[in-house]
Amino acid sequence: MYKDQIIIDGLQYCNWTRDYFKTLQKSGITAVHVTLVYHEMARETLTNFAKWNTLFEQNHDLIMRVDGVEDIVLAKKLGKVGIFFGAQNCSPIDDEIGLIEVLRKQGLLIMQLTYNNQSLLATGCYEKNDSGITRFGEQAIKEMNRVGMIIDMSHSAQKSTLEAIEISTRPICISHANPNFAHDALRNKSDEVIKALAAKGGLLGFSLYPFHLPNGSKCTLEDFCKMIAKTADLVGVDSLGIGSDLCLDQPQEVLEWMRNGKWSKAMDYGEGNASNSGWPDDLPWFKDEKGMENIYNGLMKYGFNEKEANQILGGNWFSFLQSGLEPKN
Amino acid sequence: MYKDQIIIDGLQYCNWTRDYFKTLQKSGITAVHVTLVYHEMARETLTNFAKWNTLFEQNHDLIMRVDGVEDIVLAKKLGKVGIFFGAQNCSPIDDEIGLIEVLRKQGLLIMQLTYNNQSLLATGCYEKNDSGITRFGEQAIKEMNRVGMIIDMSHSAQKSTLEAIEISTRPICISHANPNFAHDALRNKSDEVIKALAAKGGLLGFSLYPFHLPNGSKCTLEDFCKMIAKTADLVGVDSLGIGSDLCLDQPQEVLEWMRNGKWSKAMDYGEGNASNSGWPDDLPWFKDEKGMENIYNGLMKYGFNEKEANQILGGNWFSFLQSGLEPKN
Repeated sequence: MYKDQIIIDGLQYCNWTRDYFKTLQKSGITAVHVTLVYHEMARETLTNFAKWNTLFEQNHDLIMRVDGVEDIVLAKKLGKVGIFFGAQNCSPIDDEIGLIEVLRKQGLLIMQLTYNNQSLLATGCYEKNDSGITRFGEQAIKEMNRVGMIIDMSHSAQKSTLEAIEISTRPICISHANPNFAHDALRNKSDEVIKALAAKGGLLGFSLYPFHLPNGSKCTLEDFCKMIAKTADLVGVDSLGIGSDLCLDQPQEVLEWMRNGKWSKAMDYGEGNASNSGWPDDLPWFKDEKGMENIYNGLMKYGFNEKEANQILGGNWFSFLQSGLEPKN
Repeated sequence: MYKDQIIIDGLQYCNWTRDYFKTLQKSGITAVHVTLVYHEMARETLTNFAKWNTLFEQNHDLIMRVDGVEDIVLAKKLGKVGIFFGAQNCSPIDDEIGLIEVLRKQGLLIMQLTYNNQSLLATGCYEKNDSGITRFGEQAIKEMNRVGMIIDMSHSAQKSTLEAIEISTRPICISHANPNFAHDALRNKSDEVIKALAAKGGLLGFSLYPFHLPNGSKCTLEDFCKMIAKTADLVGVDSLGIGSDLCLDQPQEVLEWMRNGKWSKAMDYGEGNASNSGWPDDLPWFKDEKGMENIYNGLMKYGFNEKEANQILGGNWFSFLQSGLEPKN
């Protein structure tokens, strides 16, 4: 039964209001990977943590902080939604290797090495040239492995991603992206990447962001489940999860800030373009408290058994987090 | 027996080397309140935490981090020295109330509201005018109370200190200072302050810094124990501990930085003066691994019983930390 399972959404960046926390609670989602940072550096990251502390204080009846999988179990027991934090970029560590451990202790459990652009650690998926993992990047991967901060390559370029998988002694994730075979986009991943990821025990979270989907906002639940089935044929079920990339109720300026940060004077349209610069339309089957349950039922309708559906909706994320967050010393 | 007790030094700022950690381990000290910050603001505080993380990594056989009293118990059991962090100024929170909870989670267990000068929260002991706790200061005290960050008024002026004791709903500490009756100095405390502190369950850590002592570097162990005995006559034994303010092996530039931070172009000599600008001479009975044991034996020689000596050398700090670090929600 869906309602008895641990359900994990491997990425959201919604407008975090009390009403939305109620929706999350009703959705049956046990824990959400919340994007804490897109472009913020160390000092601003502290303020983002402080803002979330206030949300926890004001909504303690609905949400709770997750620093490890034991907190996800507790959230399930208490009927609250667990929140765990990740950064979509390595900006929170500035240029300082020691901030990885500091931020891990603060509760940053996951960090992308790049967000679309070249970073100090690796190359993003929108750069022309992918130079792979940098000198600092190699050190950072080693340190993230040591302290149990999970490496995420969702927005990274292919060579950098393959090198990260190779260099990391622990499984890494692509928390929110889809296979290129379903929809060819710079943000989606080749079979080669997905196979390398899975071969090392990594996790791929399927994205519900229309720009990553076949037929965009017209993608049907069946299309989505077929994409998952085909990926399961490629690498098995154990490496698959959901990372919805859901950005509900965010204004245009947030989209522009995600795309442009403080780095661009000319407008960058990300996955859109000048004539299609706004948020894509929501998927009718994934926009309210029924979204994850729709996928759960869809998976079983289109060929998965209940155990597999449980794995994809949360079980695999849970196991991945369990081993990935444990410090090594 | 001294060696069976939990011994706590309520403030040190030594030159933290592996050799000194070995000395600490030999001293029988179970846990030390380490000054992490004098003048550093939020971003620099993160780097200081990162530096200490490296010290923990490199010296894990000798020292361990203390985030709560259970870690002190564990340190005792493992024969390691527990390290807990405090700031001598409120600079780590910049101008942001939310950073109190963020830094508490990072492991900043104690924070002074002022360091000699006027701060955003209160007035320091070297200012001409003491305007008391500020508007931000009242909010900060409330927030520190909520999250279990201990308020320290060692370097604060009298009115500010009395107001902090009054406003705080939890006991506060003066981690390192002496009574004015023993040695009249701006950094030492009046009977009025000591009585108000103790009446609300607070803790006074006696300082071994010669500028705070009767006869300075010539202060004898007997002088020191007599000062403690007289304070016990004033307020009882339960509020008394040690906060040695030991600054072993620090160069002159560290002293100058402690005194001047980044706020003064003219040299400020703190408790010294132009003709006496250096570190005071060490006390011969408190400069090596026998220091705390000398005090322990001295207390019993000069009139305290063993239970009282245990309390003053660590038991009172332990109880104070136990209740003070517990969050309120």
